[in-house]
Amino acid sequence: MSDLETCLGTIIEIFHKYSSKEGDKYKLKKSELKELLTHEFPTLTEQVKDQATMDSLMESLDTDGDSECDFQEFMTFITMVTICCHEFFEHHEDE
Amino acid sequence: MSDLETCLGTIIEIFHKYSSKEGDKYKLKKSELKELLTHEFPTLTEQVKDQATMDSLMESLDTDGDSECDFQEFMTFITMVTICCHEFFEHHEDE
Repeated sequence: MSDLETCLGTIIEIFHKYSSKEGDKYKLKKSELKELLTHEFPTLTEQVKDQATMDSLMESLDTDGDSECDFQEFMTFITMVTICCHEFFEHHEDE
Repeated sequence: MSDLETCLGTIIEIFHKYSSKEGDKYKLKKSELKELLTHEFPTLTEQVKDQATMDSLMESLDTDGDSECDFQEFMTFITMVTICCHEFFEHHEDE
């Protein structure tokens, strides 16, 4: 497998590692999402200490309104974060 | 950096490795996209041998119609591929 193929596999594995802990094993409940973000996005979540921010993130990701985050909703979040990082990198390079 | 953060960095690096070759260095022209897919998605592109399929893929990714694939359009493709892989994995697990 190429590096890119390995990366996509890693994203799926990480989602599943947390989603399978409790309840529906293919969806992240709020506590599972919080655990995933804390462990897998340490740099980002250092900024998110309060419950209100976590609630609001969950609400914005949960487009189908079932109070859980499915894989498709998770990929929307991954895409947003990656696009933000890329924009930072693009502007940083131009300086 | 966590595995997930490293993965997002790898996706950005791979895009940039090919997009910076010719013309606009933040966009993939058709030949750059083809090279990226051939090298980074060998498993997938084994199936795509003909130019017509490549043209049609480029057309479907190029939502702003400038005949190039920018990072946002590329992430849409990555998301589609990852969701397909996840669905395969989900159904495979249930068997």
